[in-house]
Amino acid sequence: MRASDIVCMDEAFRLAKKSFDEGGLPIGSVLAEGTRILGRGHNRRVQQGDPILHGEMDCLRDAGRRASYRETTLYTTLSPCMMCAGTIVQFKIPRVIVGENRNFGGNEQFLRDHGVEVILLDDTRCRELMRNYIEANPSVWNEDIAEDAPRGGAGGQ
Amino acid sequence: MRASDIVCMDEAFRLAKKSFDEGGLPIGSVLAEGTRILGRGHNRRVQQGDPILHGEMDCLRDAGRRASYRETTLYTTLSPCMMCAGTIVQFKIPRVIVGENRNFGGNEQFLRDHGVEVILLDDTRCRELMRNYIEANPSVWNEDIAEDAPRGGAGGQ
Repeated sequence: MRASDIVCMDEAFRLAKKSFDEGGLPIGSVLAEGTRILGRGHNRRVQQGDPILHGEMDCLRDAGRRASYRETTLYTTLSPCMMCAGTIVQFKIPRVIVGENRNFGGNEQFLRDHGVEVILLDDTRCRELMRNYIEANPSVWNEDIAEDAPRGGAGGQ
Repeated sequence: MRASDIVCMDEAFRLAKKSFDEGGLPIGSVLAEGTRILGRGHNRRVQQGDPILHGEMDCLRDAGRRASYRETTLYTTLSPCMMCAGTIVQFKIPRVIVGENRNFGGNEQFLRDHGVEVILLDDTRCRELMRNYIEANPSVWNEDIAEDAPRGGAGGQ
């Protein structure tokens, strides 16, 4: 962990909270090169009706066109789904800081198998905000991870 | 192959040609349920400066929010990159028809390993349109697949 990691994860959490306050899925993300933030995003399924705008995707969209991601770190409050994990590998992002993976997880090993450094924080703020949203909005959450039937809990896949 | 597959791949090619005519990467995509087209898209990196809008992603964005993709087929003129392959797996799209994989490929087995039916057409139209674009715009193509250095050929990864 670097000092800039704390700042960037705080910013990712702020974006998750912003999305929560808008009624959307509370997942925030930041792309940075050292201390320089290149992009910010949060899930926009509810706000824009867009199924591909998970937090990480919205953040990469915000960062715009780049020739290379080799010096970047991606921060996300929730462990990446397979769409976002595939994108991290395709874009060759070498380092990912994950807020928590208790509400959703399972792709950390896929990332590591493709040479990505994954640091898991198990951040209480991220965990509680996400759990509160899932408990109040189980059908939106299941739609976001393409689970056809609502589940009792919030386990990952 | 079904009769509707021909119609939908023709539409995906039309979208790829439209993108080519706009100066963009000529990769088109359609999401359909039988003969009913749910979404259409094409790569928009050049047109919108958006790195996540590969053809397949733009198509899924266009289709909007859905509770399930279990009855859908995704058509794409070019074999999916790892972002798009990860998305197909995450969204549980069961069937993918690929125009060609000579200009880019390599993720077909990943899809099959996750239970996705992949049908490869080796379509001459798709192949030639893509090859023409890559030859004329190698740096844009390398940016689109996050290859830092231009390459002589157009091999997949």
